[in-house]
Amino acid sequence: MRTDSGHDLRHHGDAEVRDDGGSLVDLAVNVRADTPPVWLREHIAASLTGLAAYPDGRAARAAVAERHGLPVERVLLTAGAAEAFVLLARASKVRRPVVVHPQFTEPEAALRDAGHTVGRVLLREEDGFRLRPAAVPEDADLVVIGNPTNPTSVLHPADAVASLARPGRVLVVDEAFMDAVPGERESLAGRTDVPGLVVLRSLTKTWGLAGLRIGYVLAAPETVADLERAQPLWPVSTPALAAAEACVGPRAVAEAAHAAHRIAADRAHLLAGLARFAPAGLRVAGPAQGPFLLVRLPRAATVRTRLRDLGYAVRRGDTFPGLDDEWLRLAVRDRATVDGFLRALERALEH
Amino acid sequence: MRTDSGHDLRHHGDAEVRDDGGSLVDLAVNVRADTPPVWLREHIAASLTGLAAYPDGRAARAAVAERHGLPVERVLLTAGAAEAFVLLARASKVRRPVVVHPQFTEPEAALRDAGHTVGRVLLREEDGFRLRPAAVPEDADLVVIGNPTNPTSVLHPADAVASLARPGRVLVVDEAFMDAVPGERESLAGRTDVPGLVVLRSLTKTWGLAGLRIGYVLAAPETVADLERAQPLWPVSTPALAAAEACVGPRAVAEAAHAAHRIAADRAHLLAGLARFAPAGLRVAGPAQGPFLLVRLPRAATVRTRLRDLGYAVRRGDTFPGLDDEWLRLAVRDRATVDGFLRALERALEH
Repeated sequence: MRTDSGHDLRHHGDAEVRDDGGSLVDLAVNVRADTPPVWLREHIAASLTGLAAYPDGRAARAAVAERHGLPVERVLLTAGAAEAFVLLARASKVRRPVVVHPQFTEPEAALRDAGHTVGRVLLREEDGFRLRPAAVPEDADLVVIGNPTNPTSVLHPADAVASLARPGRVLVVDEAFMDAVPGERESLAGRTDVPGLVVLRSLTKTWGLAGLRIGYVLAAPETVADLERAQPLWPVSTPALAAAEACVGPRAVAEAAHAAHRIAADRAHLLAGLARFAPAGLRVAGPAQGPFLLVRLPRAATVRTRLRDLGYAVRRGDTFPGLDDEWLRLAVRDRATVDGFLRALERALEH
Repeated sequence: MRTDSGHDLRHHGDAEVRDDGGSLVDLAVNVRADTPPVWLREHIAASLTGLAAYPDGRAARAAVAERHGLPVERVLLTAGAAEAFVLLARASKVRRPVVVHPQFTEPEAALRDAGHTVGRVLLREEDGFRLRPAAVPEDADLVVIGNPTNPTSVLHPADAVASLARPGRVLVVDEAFMDAVPGERESLAGRTDVPGLVVLRSLTKTWGLAGLRIGYVLAAPETVADLERAQPLWPVSTPALAAAEACVGPRAVAEAAHAAHRIAADRAHLLAGLARFAPAGLRVAGPAQGPFLLVRLPRAATVRTRLRDLGYAVRRGDTFPGLDDEWLRLAVRDRATVDGFLRALERALEH
């Protein structure tokens, strides 16, 4: 689907790897490698004996509420963040929705599909893609922002994000990658003092559950009730509920925190390696705080094609509003994978 | 949720068993007992190693298309039939939708939630709950009917159902229980000569996959495209896709056909056992052709409560438009379970 602006909002990283039957080293999809862990896979497998019963989401919902110190009325489990965007688009009686770009394109696509006219705030490279609250129109009654933002990897201060709240405005903060930020600093999850706040969280990226479709919404009880009414019956499958319950427990949260520090170390390694390409014109947006990097380099489209020939898939940047074909997004991987990628990048740039 | 008509359209059989921690013998939920079979559970478990990747529905879609001899453009996989009802309600530009009752209430609930005003055609007990095509208003531009119908267990002739088709009308036939009918006679799945036909199929009931959320829609390519646009990204999980592909293969279809005959035998056993309660005023709607029976008996609500005390859960009938508190729905179970139930029913009626 191409929108009026010419950006393919329905292009996602999975399309960049799946047609090659898994032969490419994947730096295109923002899901942690080598996941789900064995203990989680076994926990999910154990739920399969109960498949004949309809899903009962109560235990998972209570577990998520407990994880964020919220009452269950402020929690809604969804079939991935993608469903949450559709529910928000369908259930929101708004007239002036605005999306802060560049960011994950699905919220805008869902709003458009639901018949809304969507405004865009474009953050600028010269500002390091940092949020300028003043750039958001005062009359916007729904604002969507990612934190940390995909694809820029910029982590906005929680106060700056919260400052976007207004009476009569829905403030949607997509925190799909927040659990990859050490200490989850700048998270608004669990806050009940920000009017109109809707926080979206994912279990997909850190836990490798993209195939399972599970995420959740934290919002005021009335908003949760509105979104719930727009959901199909039994919206989340039993295996996904089992996974959600397991992934918000203390042990899993500690494991995710550990992984966040490892990702930070791996990201530093990738950044150090990319520094040597500065003479070739490569620049990294930032400071990057997510499990991916946004890089700019001349002839990025050609470089991407050459990287494919060398066995490496990276995410094109030109489908994100505010970016063009000089941008690429790179998932942070372990050191060995990064080292291999850096060698391939060197060859791709040699041509 | 109680609607204007006083029927709780959002009451389903699972609510009648789940608060008792599994201590009740379940004749309330229309899912085949002892499912999913081990081979299917193992097949689904094997898919868990691929959870880190986003779901790719192409193979399952092709398998469903092949099963019904249709091109893939006529197939849409959904997160259960419940999602299909929501998609139809959201995507349909209709002004006069009509639901043929008594039947599964979710289609009407989804239509209402999407803002439609829903008309009802009530089939009558004195007609054996058989479809009277003339009862459907000529100007209805969307008609929903179940075949075989839940909860009446009546199987309408395919020709009678197809006769409801009109230019400019969407004809939704919910065939969620059709694979439990030997030979799937009276199915419209695979037909391309009925204008506006939308067939919904489920894998939940026969295969015990209620917890997995998987079903599919067969319709004209334009309709499939409209519904697909209303779906979230990645609507069906990887385990559900694995199950769908497995359940439409030749071996699984043969196994379902075998099960359909066993269900027919078990139903005959239940019917024979119920015959002895005719002097107590018990009547069975029919002829029943599905994996459940609709029965009428005096003081059914009291009998249902007594059955609970005796360890048996049955489905109340009064939440279905067109029925009242004299009706109960009984799932067909194996002979031993049926015999135990009949003894309990005898005691429940003694009081």
